[in-house]
Amino acid sequence: MKKAIEGNMVIAQSGGPSAVINQSLVGAVVEAKKSGKIGKIYGALHGIKGILEEKFIDLGRESDKTLNAVAKTPSSALGTVRMKPSQSDCLDIFAVLKNYGVRYFFYIGGNDSAETAQIINQEAKRANYELRCFHIPKTIDNDLRENDHTPGFGSAAKFVAVAVMGDNLDNRALPGVKIDVIMGRHAGFLTAATALARVHNDDGPHLIYLPERPFNVDTFAADVQKVYKKLGRCVVAVSEGISDEKGVPIASKFTREVDSHGNVQLSGTGALGDLLAGIIKAETSIKRVRADTFGYLQRSFPSVISETDSREARAVGRIAVKCALSADIDGSIAIKRKNTERYSVYFERVPLEKVARKTKEMPAEFINKQGNFITPRFIKYAAPLVGKLPEVARLKGYRVVKK
Amino acid sequence: MKKAIEGNMVIAQSGGPSAVINQSLVGAVVEAKKSGKIGKIYGALHGIKGILEEKFIDLGRESDKTLNAVAKTPSSALGTVRMKPSQSDCLDIFAVLKNYGVRYFFYIGGNDSAETAQIINQEAKRANYELRCFHIPKTIDNDLRENDHTPGFGSAAKFVAVAVMGDNLDNRALPGVKIDVIMGRHAGFLTAATALARVHNDDGPHLIYLPERPFNVDTFAADVQKVYKKLGRCVVAVSEGISDEKGVPIASKFTREVDSHGNVQLSGTGALGDLLAGIIKAETSIKRVRADTFGYLQRSFPSVISETDSREARAVGRIAVKCALSADIDGSIAIKRKNTERYSVYFERVPLEKVARKTKEMPAEFINKQGNFITPRFIKYAAPLVGKLPEVARLKGYRVVKK
Repeated sequence: MKKAIEGNMVIAQSGGPSAVINQSLVGAVVEAKKSGKIGKIYGALHGIKGILEEKFIDLGRESDKTLNAVAKTPSSALGTVRMKPSQSDCLDIFAVLKNYGVRYFFYIGGNDSAETAQIINQEAKRANYELRCFHIPKTIDNDLRENDHTPGFGSAAKFVAVAVMGDNLDNRALPGVKIDVIMGRHAGFLTAATALARVHNDDGPHLIYLPERPFNVDTFAADVQKVYKKLGRCVVAVSEGISDEKGVPIASKFTREVDSHGNVQLSGTGALGDLLAGIIKAETSIKRVRADTFGYLQRSFPSVISETDSREARAVGRIAVKCALSADIDGSIAIKRKNTERYSVYFERVPLEKVARKTKEMPAEFINKQGNFITPRFIKYAAPLVGKLPEVARLKGYRVVKK
Repeated sequence: MKKAIEGNMVIAQSGGPSAVINQSLVGAVVEAKKSGKIGKIYGALHGIKGILEEKFIDLGRESDKTLNAVAKTPSSALGTVRMKPSQSDCLDIFAVLKNYGVRYFFYIGGNDSAETAQIINQEAKRANYELRCFHIPKTIDNDLRENDHTPGFGSAAKFVAVAVMGDNLDNRALPGVKIDVIMGRHAGFLTAATALARVHNDDGPHLIYLPERPFNVDTFAADVQKVYKKLGRCVVAVSEGISDEKGVPIASKFTREVDSHGNVQLSGTGALGDLLAGIIKAETSIKRVRADTFGYLQRSFPSVISETDSREARAVGRIAVKCALSADIDGSIAIKRKNTERYSVYFERVPLEKVARKTKEMPAEFINKQGNFITPRFIKYAAPLVGKLPEVARLKGYRVVKK
């Protein structure tokens, strides 16, 4: 088996940013520098668009100090793109790569980016262009197949958990119904992670709606009514991707924007939250109903970052380069969880086609029977990915007997 | 002058929560306990509503451990309310206070809460009910008169600055127009604080719109177009309270909900952000336009809290109790800034009517001539209130010459 080949490398970032995507970038760059087996380390700006336009930076010249500071900085430092390459794009890409002597290609992103890597890999073989093509996983949605979880999820999950901790305290102080709309197109993992915010039994979120279960307006209103009757308040976490019985996303009724992978825009608008608040106002007699859409804060918020997530994001970048240098192979680096009492993971190279395009949903064992909350098994799954949450306290509240 | 009088105290929280409002509560409770001059320390649940309904807890029984943990916890631990008392409410309140032997009344809140304290103080004098009545300042809006700034603002400002830091990185990676809607009904301080997010010259926010200047749709679209043309992207921070030339809030066109102080609901809906995004989509050829409304996260987010803000919030609670015990006086505790090179403050008792009802706006010297950004003087004013922000870094980005 042929080990390292002579050549330069290109690395790029694609799809939605995350808080730790630069850890993967830096993990790969540092490993490439250290190996001494790779010539130039090019960073393509804005994914494959940067290759097509020959917009490269020389990552080999970045100091360790800069790299380490960038690793801790959220959002894609190289810029990102949502673009699915055509066959002709691929030929153009190979022409550029050849011109720059590139034989190693690393693409950091989610399932759509894995598909891009897969297409480029296939077309490279067909065009007889020798290329070691690797996908490095990233997605706050946590929906990559083959992975126990994905880099980016732990930090986004920590953000939404902290946000809902605060929001629950706010709702407790000024009671009413509060609806929080969380990112997640097809997979409810991130919305489910809001459950980590709960400290006391009566803490919110009290209801959680996921894209994995059909969303019914009447059931929703009845669920909220029931919690409100019991607690005098109700905090609801809802995935932006919740869909009706026919699978049509509720939010898609307000937008027509579609990207080149065929995804409808669900984020960057408050319409779904406002619709749901309107339903509660219309269907119940509850007066104070509010909705917040957490939006892009979830994926790029500095200072609320999971340590485990950072560490693993760095590792997948490092390991992808190690793999690429070890033999004439391609693939994606997947995170697998060991079946041990204490949380621990290992990394495995998996075929690109196994993570490309299709996504993973929340397993049934993580969702309650009524489809309006998560199970304790989900908490056990998600807690180690998020790590320590801030401590919030209640007064003991010794009630004074009425005179 | 009569010093401490024999009696119990009631303390309550009112209006919107903040991240440090419990510091003030705990500051007052700890000082009252320490003084040995106050009998029972009652906490009324949900402001004056709790007094009317005789819903009291015995704060004197809370341990120091609990109090210190609660102090660090965002959102009003006693619960809050938005309620303006009528004359007859006041008489009912005095009947309850008399029954519970209360001679000290502390009300933590903003200008509306100061008005409540003022009304109760006036009516107590009229009813000849001996009561030492104090308002303790709190508002993320930073719009209390007589105060250089108010407890709660520094932490909310830190949150929005950190959020926009991340959002700017996100927008830089995936360019387009991003509109962030920030809390602030009449005063733009909090929206202005997003400017603290800027590290490099081309960092967002690139435009800031405040309630203090009339918002014109055409100027807005032209401003965004201009920035976009120059940078290929644009991050905009907008106060929820922006109003048209006639003073009508843009957001009020979507809602009819009004509280007992006459305030129209502006938060808890994404309508304004969506409207502004729609304007840019309609008026320009820019394709990627997104809006996020930061919502309630701004005022109750744990773990992004300003140390200076925490310290000062604790101090105003402590000082209010000290004042009330020192002489037969009433008032509000105001924060004044010393005219020194290094940031430093002092506290002053001011008459209730001077902070009640009416609010303060951003001074003209903090807003640029075009009314679409802040001045360096504002940064000098706000930076010490917020404290240290997370470090975010860019790659040096050594461009590779095209081949």
